[in-house]
Amino acid sequence: MEKAMQKYLDKAEVLIEALPYIQRFNRKIIVVKYGGSAMVDEELKARVIQDVTLLKLVGFKPIIVHGGGKEISKWVGKVGMEPQFINGLRVTDAETMELAEMVLGKVNKSLVQLVEQLGVRAIGISGKDGGLLKVDKKLADGEDIGFVGDVKEVNADIIYDLLEKDFLPIIAPIGLDDDYNTYNINADDAACAIAKAINAEKLAFLTDIEGVYKDPKDPSTLISELNVSDGKKLMEEGYIGGGMLPKIQNCIDAIENGVSRVHILDGRIPHCLLLEIFTNKGIGTAIKNDIEERYYYGE
Amino acid sequence: MEKAMQKYLDKAEVLIEALPYIQRFNRKIIVVKYGGSAMVDEELKARVIQDVTLLKLVGFKPIIVHGGGKEISKWVGKVGMEPQFINGLRVTDAETMELAEMVLGKVNKSLVQLVEQLGVRAIGISGKDGGLLKVDKKLADGEDIGFVGDVKEVNADIIYDLLEKDFLPIIAPIGLDDDYNTYNINADDAACAIAKAINAEKLAFLTDIEGVYKDPKDPSTLISELNVSDGKKLMEEGYIGGGMLPKIQNCIDAIENGVSRVHILDGRIPHCLLLEIFTNKGIGTAIKNDIEERYYYGE
Amino acid sequence: MEKAMQKYLDKAEVLIEALPYIQRFNRKIIVVKYGGSAMVDEELKARVIQDVTLLKLVGFKPIIVHGGGKEISKWVGKVGMEPQFINGLRVTDAETMELAEMVLGKVNKSLVQLVEQLGVRAIGISGKDGGLLKVDKKLADGEDIGFVGDVKEVNADIIYDLLEKDFLPIIAPIGLDDDYNTYNINADDAACAIAKAINAEKLAFLTDIEGVYKDPKDPSTLISELNVSDGKKLMEEGYIGGGMLPKIQNCIDAIENGVSRVHILDGRIPHCLLLEIFTNKGIGTAIKNDIEERYYYGE
Amino acid sequence: MEKAMQKYLDKAEVLIEALPYIQRFNRKIIVVKYGGSAMVDEELKARVIQDVTLLKLVGFKPIIVHGGGKEISKWVGKVGMEPQFINGLRVTDAETMELAEMVLGKVNKSLVQLVEQLGVRAIGISGKDGGLLKVDKKLADGEDIGFVGDVKEVNADIIYDLLEKDFLPIIAPIGLDDDYNTYNINADDAACAIAKAINAEKLAFLTDIEGVYKDPKDPSTLISELNVSDGKKLMEEGYIGGGMLPKIQNCIDAIENGVSRVHILDGRIPHCLLLEIFTNKGIGTAIKNDIEERYYYGE
Amino acid sequence: MEKAMQKYLDKAEVLIEALPYIQRFNRKIIVVKYGGSAMVDEELKARVIQDVTLLKLVGFKPIIVHGGGKEISKWVGKVGMEPQFINGLRVTDAETMELAEMVLGKVNKSLVQLVEQLGVRAIGISGKDGGLLKVDKKLADGEDIGFVGDVKEVNADIIYDLLEKDFLPIIAPIGLDDDYNTYNINADDAACAIAKAINAEKLAFLTDIEGVYKDPKDPSTLISELNVSDGKKLMEEGYIGGGMLPKIQNCIDAIENGVSRVHILDGRIPHCLLLEIFTNKGIGTAIKNDIEERYYYGE
Amino acid sequence: MEKAMQKYLDKAEVLIEALPYIQRFNRKIIVVKYGGSAMVDEELKARVIQDVTLLKLVGFKPIIVHGGGKEISKWVGKVGMEPQFINGLRVTDAETMELAEMVLGKVNKSLVQLVEQLGVRAIGISGKDGGLLKVDKKLADGEDIGFVGDVKEVNADIIYDLLEKDFLPIIAPIGLDDDYNTYNINADDAACAIAKAINAEKLAFLTDIEGVYKDPKDPSTLISELNVSDGKKLMEEGYIGGGMLPKIQNCIDAIENGVSRVHILDGRIPHCLLLEIFTNKGIGTAIKNDIEERYYYGE
Repeated sequence: MEKAMQKYLDKAEVLIEALPYIQRFNRKIIVVKYGGSAMVDEELKARVIQDVTLLKLVGFKPIIVHGGGKEISKWVGKVGMEPQFINGLRVTDAETMELAEMVLGKVNKSLVQLVEQLGVRAIGISGKDGGLLKVDKKLADGEDIGFVGDVKEVNADIIYDLLEKDFLPIIAPIGLDDDYNTYNINADDAACAIAKAINAEKLAFLTDIEGVYKDPKDPSTLISELNVSDGKKLMEEGYIGGGMLPKIQNCIDAIENGVSRVHILDGRIPHCLLLEIFTNKGIGTAIKNDIEERYYYGE
Repeated sequence: MEKAMQKYLDKAEVLIEALPYIQRFNRKIIVVKYGGSAMVDEELKARVIQDVTLLKLVGFKPIIVHGGGKEISKWVGKVGMEPQFINGLRVTDAETMELAEMVLGKVNKSLVQLVEQLGVRAIGISGKDGGLLKVDKKLADGEDIGFVGDVKEVNADIIYDLLEKDFLPIIAPIGLDDDYNTYNINADDAACAIAKAINAEKLAFLTDIEGVYKDPKDPSTLISELNVSDGKKLMEEGYIGGGMLPKIQNCIDAIENGVSRVHILDGRIPHCLLLEIFTNKGIGTAIKNDIEERYYYGE
Repeated sequence: MEKAMQKYLDKAEVLIEALPYIQRFNRKIIVVKYGGSAMVDEELKARVIQDVTLLKLVGFKPIIVHGGGKEISKWVGKVGMEPQFINGLRVTDAETMELAEMVLGKVNKSLVQLVEQLGVRAIGISGKDGGLLKVDKKLADGEDIGFVGDVKEVNADIIYDLLEKDFLPIIAPIGLDDDYNTYNINADDAACAIAKAINAEKLAFLTDIEGVYKDPKDPSTLISELNVSDGKKLMEEGYIGGGMLPKIQNCIDAIENGVSRVHILDGRIPHCLLLEIFTNKGIGTAIKNDIEERYYYGE
Repeated sequence: MEKAMQKYLDKAEVLIEALPYIQRFNRKIIVVKYGGSAMVDEELKARVIQDVTLLKLVGFKPIIVHGGGKEISKWVGKVGMEPQFINGLRVTDAETMELAEMVLGKVNKSLVQLVEQLGVRAIGISGKDGGLLKVDKKLADGEDIGFVGDVKEVNADIIYDLLEKDFLPIIAPIGLDDDYNTYNINADDAACAIAKAINAEKLAFLTDIEGVYKDPKDPSTLISELNVSDGKKLMEEGYIGGGMLPKIQNCIDAIENGVSRVHILDGRIPHCLLLEIFTNKGIGTAIKNDIEERYYYGE
Repeated sequence: MEKAMQKYLDKAEVLIEALPYIQRFNRKIIVVKYGGSAMVDEELKARVIQDVTLLKLVGFKPIIVHGGGKEISKWVGKVGMEPQFINGLRVTDAETMELAEMVLGKVNKSLVQLVEQLGVRAIGISGKDGGLLKVDKKLADGEDIGFVGDVKEVNADIIYDLLEKDFLPIIAPIGLDDDYNTYNINADDAACAIAKAINAEKLAFLTDIEGVYKDPKDPSTLISELNVSDGKKLMEEGYIGGGMLPKIQNCIDAIENGVSRVHILDGRIPHCLLLEIFTNKGIGTAIKNDIEERYYYGE
Repeated sequence: MEKAMQKYLDKAEVLIEALPYIQRFNRKIIVVKYGGSAMVDEELKARVIQDVTLLKLVGFKPIIVHGGGKEISKWVGKVGMEPQFINGLRVTDAETMELAEMVLGKVNKSLVQLVEQLGVRAIGISGKDGGLLKVDKKLADGEDIGFVGDVKEVNADIIYDLLEKDFLPIIAPIGLDDDYNTYNINADDAACAIAKAINAEKLAFLTDIEGVYKDPKDPSTLISELNVSDGKKLMEEGYIGGGMLPKIQNCIDAIENGVSRVHILDGRIPHCLLLEIFTNKGIGTAIKNDIEERYYYGE
């Protein structure tokens, strides 16, 4: 057979290899926490949007929860605002909150735009719409650090309604407290709270690390699969620290509340989402239950 | 009967008087173009939101299309941007467009917040979501004035879907061209295009004038009802000018495309929407077909 | 502002004040036992129908259960029938039952007519239709007093079906026993049985008294709120007697079977239903659970 | 085979013979005008109810429109009312109308009761419910004969809603004029108007005659099938007179407005409805279009 | 009354007698195991199809599970295949299985054809379609007898879907094992497994015997009703043997898993299904729970 | 980047390239006529099933219409039947028809099995089920050649119902005439008739040729796109002959009756369906309207 033809056949084979994965996740909800480098690099951004759009088109129900990336800091500078500190902690005062909401709104609609451009129906909302995210004020070491909130309630109805109407929901992590004040929410926390509330099949964090290491200084200690018990032990024994600690806690929390699998992916690898879902190539770290049905292909 | 009791009975009577109007507009779509002073004055703003929320609760299907009020200019100043001009026309360059979208997004969510606070389910979108508003670049006297668009297509499906799910949609007037660039749209134009696309029963403009005058200098010439033919004649004869001209053209366009009635209301009067809909008090100017079914009460 | 305008604004404010109540009872079922003076006085009758119709139009689901008022006695006389007595108790023999059914049917359709006249879709049924009310013969002090029944089963399906089709059901208190004989049912009992069977939010009795008194001779002892425990205690201690005793028992029974609140209203006050539901004016006596969510406004 | 067994087999064969008819009328609407002797004789009454109930259970959608039989006259006497006449025409004054409505209501619920007793869900309504029948005052030779109405509008929605909820509707021929006054309607007219409005497949009149005769004095001239043209000719040529004339006009009117077949049945024959529908025995007279699909079995 | 008329009236009475049965089984699922003489004799076959079709048309939901009758043996001979035996047991090798599937497929479609001919919508499937029947290999006395399977899982969804779309499902007893090999299933077992999985109201076996006898040699010992306890006792005491033993076990298994009644009918009696369901003539043996609601008419 | 990783990324890119095609054909119906070598070669067969299953999983609605391949001839030999001829034409007598139906049934279920094995819900039917295909006897040059039929009516409801229930329908080309006799239908004709009746988006024939040639002797004259006018001209000018003539007529007929595109594919190329749909590689010949929307990617 001629060479050009072979190339086409190879492509067909790749599609066929995707069959069991497409079948496995048909109509399943996948929450993607989108942030980090994958949000800054235009090339990577385009790949993430392609991936999520493909997931939607082949029958999954993806939801994007995004942060503001480096845009918020950029605009704080642009407007000439001075960052506030209390006891050394950065504070989100009303003015900063207003700007943060504007920036998150801009990012939100730019993602809608990219998805729409690929022919898929997207809708950009924040935790205010339909009362999606209700928060309590978050205290840092007992200090009031302003309008930063902990999710205390997720009104999942709005998400089900939008999914039923075949939208791809894109969510900015902003919420309201009982007095209807606006609060910023950590995007990881928001993604985790939403994934739990809607019993997502998967929750995937796009991060700027390769995954979880036993010894962060030794790349060879990357953990590709971690069950809940082992994860807890690692934390107790002090192996996990820094920014990774709350992330792992979020992951375990999600698993213990009905999410089947949580993935810490390296968002710097193009198509990391597709690679995770459609191939047997282990990307990053998967957190799962101690005992798990053996339904995953290629493991 | 004691006096306190009488007061309560009077209140009951007011509710009963609303019966025929509630019945008349049950499940009808009412597009409210929200702008002007009613958007700046906090007191008036609260009234507008109450009115729209009440309309929703008693069975109507209101939709808000809003402008950015004076917020955009305020932020242009805050950021220190220099307005651009071409041949004396102000130009919306990419940077201004970015800021305008941020401000409109902020306004949008603040309205969502106010409606949610009154216990009604709101969702804030722009013309990007679900591909709602498609635009062509607008030229002013043949000049390119940047990212300002004319609506060329309304994807009404998204609105029907949101209404079906019992949301009160709040819409920022931003759209995409065929190359998926972001454009600002005049809020009056956006409201008019949407009202036509979904065959709204009513389209109401909240403005800063009392209504249409035959002679703007003589308050006694306020026109309370204007049919399409008379409206066209007034325009031909030059009675209508300034900012009112495009508004009237929009009104007539809406009527000729299936909207039953268009209202130019004085947004400076508290509860002007309720007064128009629930009482026989003529507020502002109503534009209607030359021949009209006699279904209006109190006329 | 001119005086006429102020009047209109006052009206708008009344509508706005109704907002939280409309929102609170949206799609909730409210059973109204309609009887007494409010059924005889044409003026009061018109008010009751307006009230119920308004409740329907603003999104509640009202159901009317009515008695025959003084019409039955009037017709017994007209036809020249002699009342029957056994041991001093009045007996509903077959002939009286036939006439009572005719009169209740007439009253039923006259209420349908009044509601239809206000533009709301009504349907008049009795407990025979769709097998709504199944009864056992009621004995009075062990004596057979003829075709008077106790409700033993409510076939709630028919009511749900009619509500789903957006009818306002108007129900005459007639039922069938296991042998398909026709029985008269006390309208209070019928309303109570229906409210329990469909888990109504509210059950309101229109009566000819101001409410429940601790000491019926002392108007100042009117009880505006009564919880179940206190109600039982009052009965045990003999404070409640006469026709009020079975009514209170009905109320408590309803509360204990899922109805959120029962109201004994003074039907002689025009719009007593609206006053109860839409204002913070206490009308009559409200019976409620000992512990109750604090969702009522204006209390 | 033993004799008892043969009897059972014969029964099975009868059911099997019904197959094509059951299939033919599956989900078709059949309006039965119920009146005459079949309403007075308890034995015949039971048969009619059995027939209609069977039609319902095997998948048809029967609707009963009934008159008041001789009950109205009986009650007029009972109450001691004097019939009114104007120019020799009997007049339905307000008092008579009130009594007629009461009697029709009683008859209506007694039919509901019989159908419910056979385990089928019935609902008894009049033309007031859901605004089913709107009338104009009927004049007799230009004379006002009181509250007698001509149907001018049928609100078919209510019937579709009740059929959808699987009720067997039983309808009393009472309607409202534009001022919401109560009117009596000739039951034949009401049945015909309803059959036309809902495009019934069949309209069957239960009468006290054997059918239409060419020569009423000669029983051998009974017409078993009559098409519209021939029916009109017979009327023009004066063969049809008396009470039969308006009935035939009603029949032709129904056929010309979408009803497939109209039957004038002899209600004095037990099970005349079943005989007509399930056997090839011609009962009474069938009126049909000049040209008709040959879908009838056994003809 | 003339004689011909009387004949018609008798027919009408037969239909009326069927009323309570039609009502009783409305929308109930009835699984018919079709086999034996009733499948070979063309006359009987036509009767069975008529019966099942009638059941469908009057509102029941019948399902046919059929065997291959004597057709399989006939074709084995036609093709010249030699039956295989292991230790004296007949073996279904791959070649025989292939032929058996072909024959069952032919029989299946011929039944579809007969039902369609009577105007009812049929669909013929096997246990492969929609993954309806999953099997394990069946061992006979520990011996591998080839592709003969025991049902281990019924995917009832497909049946509900087909019933919802108003099909009469006709099912060939073929299934797949976990490796997707084709297996033959005993038709009695398949019918029983399906009836249990969908909670059928009735399961009726068409057999070539009159029913269950206490003493097979004494026709007077035919048991017309057998409850589960008595059935178990008879088996323990050795009264039931031969081919009847597994059938009775199937029956008891079905009753204990939610089927209300199982019938062993004599398929050689024409219309045995109708006789059983629509008359009080006891045909064959009915197996039922020890305690049973008294809802059956004519018993 | 390491080589293994590159391989994975290449795979992800292939999936992404499929995006526009997946989007383009979402929920569109694609009829695949399956026959020829692709049915005989087990390797090719597996590929076809994979392709169709993938189409189903990514949101298309594929339908397979299959022939019997060489199986029918094989079985005719096996059974020892003598082919019949009339005037040199092969005749499908009753016996052959019976065998053909058995073989087609076997092939049908084997395809169901393969699709089910890949986790997709399949249902195998013939034109008898639900009365799908009604035929007239086909004459060949005026000669009766037995039970060979021309489709005269397609009852598309059954297909819509099965698609709605998410089945992948697999159809054997057998139909019934008005007397309910069984007929064989040419599989190409059946596929074409079905595609027209359900307004399929695409109809694809898997054949044993590379496509349509202008000069069959010169491989370089392969036509990759052919519009209806040119196709007709080619036929008129005699360029198309043999077995290709009726195929092309079928294609043109399909296009002229609402099918958007018809493809003559070379079934000997593995994954020819995927290649056609998901790549810009032209496989075989596409027949289309003279004027066509430019919605195809990669052309």
